[in-house]
Amino acid sequence: MFSEKVEHLIQALSLMPSVGKKTAQRLAIHLLQHDRAAATQIANAINAAVGSVGSCQRCRNLSEHPICHICRDSRRNDSLICVVEGPMDVIAIEQSTNFSGRYFVLMGHLSPLDGIGPNELGLDILEATLQSGQTQELILATNVNAEGDATAYYLAELARKYGVSTSRIAFGVPMGGELEYTDSYTLGHAFERRTQF
Amino acid sequence: MFSEKVEHLIQALSLMPSVGKKTAQRLAIHLLQHDRAAATQIANAINAAVGSVGSCQRCRNLSEHPICHICRDSRRNDSLICVVEGPMDVIAIEQSTNFSGRYFVLMGHLSPLDGIGPNELGLDILEATLQSGQTQELILATNVNAEGDATAYYLAELARKYGVSTSRIAFGVPMGGELEYTDSYTLGHAFERRTQF
Repeated sequence: MFSEKVEHLIQALSLMPSVGKKTAQRLAIHLLQHDRAAATQIANAINAAVGSVGSCQRCRNLSEHPICHICRDSRRNDSLICVVEGPMDVIAIEQSTNFSGRYFVLMGHLSPLDGIGPNELGLDILEATLQSGQTQELILATNVNAEGDATAYYLAELARKYGVSTSRIAFGVPMGGELEYTDSYTLGHAFERRTQF
Repeated sequence: MFSEKVEHLIQALSLMPSVGKKTAQRLAIHLLQHDRAAATQIANAINAAVGSVGSCQRCRNLSEHPICHICRDSRRNDSLICVVEGPMDVIAIEQSTNFSGRYFVLMGHLSPLDGIGPNELGLDILEATLQSGQTQELILATNVNAEGDATAYYLAELARKYGVSTSRIAFGVPMGGELEYTDSYTLGHAFERRTQF
């Protein structure tokens, strides 16, 4: 419908998650018609990031440095490690809590059917840290679903081997949640795990 | 929060329309974590398009060729010209109608306060076409709002100078539109312009 290069741009933009064909068309036309400087800036930022961003050798989070800025921060508490599935989880915890320990970013969860085992999640790095004896508590902040639970269970076993205590983020009815509209899985577990009032 | 290059990428992606900070974060992390090939493809497509896509000399639509593929198509009817505000409008009309004439893409609308006058919309090119005597009808398909109406009015005056008849796309309650939920401006005009049943 458009000329070839414009169509290529639309196709490329629709490779982004939750960007459909119509949105990609709007983005492409906007960039070409109104904001070519932004377009070039986006292309340059992508190339710069793809070319240099790798994994932090200590926590596996995305970083263009061998050790990321959180791992370099000497004010953080080395005895606490919070394990999360991805970089967005680090942001969520940094923004919502006053956690001041270290992170370990799995970049996924255990999924044997997809060939993702302990090695793919860098658990050898985590194991070496646990082995060093510096860690007092491993906070398991993987997602609260079947995969996240299975991964947390595996990590808890690993920590037990080195005498490191583990904790799991609380699971229950979210703040502001009305019982009537809470899914039965959540409500069932929240009821089971009720605490003294 | 993220490392510098990742932050740059997030900032760059949020330059796109309707992409906020949170969406830009998700896009950046997805591209870096799961799909670097797509990221590179997007950067290359942007650079290729920005580097070569200009305006069709005849209809002003986006194209990397001096004359776009619609203007090159000899099967289209030279005596009909449909004037639209932007490239997305061409797509909308191509997909919804069987219009087989030519287009003229204003790439905007008259907006004296923003310094957009007839010259900025390439009306000299349109005027030359009208002057050539080939055009029988100028279809005014600018948006149905104050700016689009003002632009259509100006274009109608221009066409009259060369004895070219003009038409304006119909305005009224949209298909499936319920009167109760139709805005009063639309309903007022639809009532005024009622036609014999």
